[in-house]
Amino acid sequence: MTLAVIGLGLIGGSMALTLKEKGLAVRVLGVEADPCHAAEALRLGLVEEILPLDAAVDAADVLLLAVPVDALVTLLPRVLDRVKRQVVFDAGSTKEAVLNAVAGHPRRGRFVAAHPMWGTEYSGPAAAVSNGFMGKAAVICDSEVSDPDALAKVEGIHRALGMHLVYMNGRDHDVHVAYISHISHITSFALANTVLEKEREEGTIFELASGGFESTVRLAKSNPAMWVPIFRQNRENVLDVLNEHISQLRKFKACLEKENYDYLGELIGQANAIRRIIH
Amino acid sequence: MTLAVIGLGLIGGSMALTLKEKGLAVRVLGVEADPCHAAEALRLGLVEEILPLDAAVDAADVLLLAVPVDALVTLLPRVLDRVKRQVVFDAGSTKEAVLNAVAGHPRRGRFVAAHPMWGTEYSGPAAAVSNGFMGKAAVICDSEVSDPDALAKVEGIHRALGMHLVYMNGRDHDVHVAYISHISHITSFALANTVLEKEREEGTIFELASGGFESTVRLAKSNPAMWVPIFRQNRENVLDVLNEHISQLRKFKACLEKENYDYLGELIGQANAIRRIIH
Repeated sequence: MTLAVIGLGLIGGSMALTLKEKGLAVRVLGVEADPCHAAEALRLGLVEEILPLDAAVDAADVLLLAVPVDALVTLLPRVLDRVKRQVVFDAGSTKEAVLNAVAGHPRRGRFVAAHPMWGTEYSGPAAAVSNGFMGKAAVICDSEVSDPDALAKVEGIHRALGMHLVYMNGRDHDVHVAYISHISHITSFALANTVLEKEREEGTIFELASGGFESTVRLAKSNPAMWVPIFRQNRENVLDVLNEHISQLRKFKACLEKENYDYLGELIGQANAIRRIIH
Repeated sequence: MTLAVIGLGLIGGSMALTLKEKGLAVRVLGVEADPCHAAEALRLGLVEEILPLDAAVDAADVLLLAVPVDALVTLLPRVLDRVKRQVVFDAGSTKEAVLNAVAGHPRRGRFVAAHPMWGTEYSGPAAAVSNGFMGKAAVICDSEVSDPDALAKVEGIHRALGMHLVYMNGRDHDVHVAYISHISHITSFALANTVLEKEREEGTIFELASGGFESTVRLAKSNPAMWVPIFRQNRENVLDVLNEHISQLRKFKACLEKENYDYLGELIGQANAIRRIIH
């Protein structure tokens, strides 16, 4: 197949790289608004050719839209306007908004809403790696509204990446990712700002920072151009989780203020139950 | 040298293992209150013999106290009471309390206060690994109060583990670790409780959890028996950082509530500055 990747960042670049390595994509075309990223993607061999959007839509069998979720909701209807029998899928971290943006579109069936649950804190084509997706989940939303051949194609692509498929509607997806991904980013951004604000001796942080610190703040390196639109589209769910998180932190604060160390131990013991879920 | 390790958990066990592998410890004795841990440490070959405390103090050249910091402040003076020319060091995550507990002790000079900035979320002798310490910092506090030969011995041990040495007083140490280690654990415990509280569908978390979630909650598996005493001893510093962290989280909350996405982008941009510190 000829794959066109629209948006040659971490996810688009990594998909291009892996699907070419696996032999699924015989030819990979790229569409990229940033000329530096376009040149870099060519140089890194992620894509064979950079084309304007319309030319890429016409030339491709399958199109991946891997752009920030605010761009996605305007770009996807435009792509579907031009599509005939091509298959279109996305990789966005929020789903309700994009599903609403194309509900009722005459070519809605050609689109499959997908979210590969993998990423890193890095962005741009230079961040692309092959096999990052291996062993992770890919969520497919509202699969019953996609044409069966389009769905089968997109399922096959994600299976070829080594991913297991999970099906749900867009509303449930957005609630779950608020807990499983979006709140982790907010706590990490806020933790970085806490440390940078209060700990002026950056040399000391650098010297002392250990694995625990690194793992809790590494997401704080994530790109605002990607994350602001995600938080905006998933605002209500993220606010729910953030309110709950602040109230959980206040319990720890109250234990310390009141020197209630028995309850502090209980709270930590409750948190230890996360062992059942991540090993 | 004959090394006695008092407390055969993650840190004590890992030090025993690595110092034997490096040939620095010719013989390793263990002191362990939990009979299951004692048997496990013997079975795993972390130590050659389990002895009562006094017998271990008499037989060793160097003693490592690797017990929770509440036990440390009562155990260390007792060990120093019996010590003659032996060298004693600890591995505690808080330093002011232990330094105060032995200030003015007639054998204070035999003790070197040390904190190796490495750990994992696992505990007990089975969690011990060799070479975990490699490339990390070891903080030595109030080194001027230790006898020069004792200091040189403990510096040599940490260098043999592949660690670089950082010197500071106990008060500064406790402030820095509140930022660099203790708050990361509180956010991780609170994040685990947030998710476990609100997201009842544990199967879904398990299916969808990606690297970002895992890295921000993995510290939530940490042992309350170790962490409650740390938070208790470092209560004031931890409360300062926790208050700052909650106010940073409130800024994110206010941005979402007021739909102020420009400021949200600024907050994320500020957090990105953590790149200067962790690479």
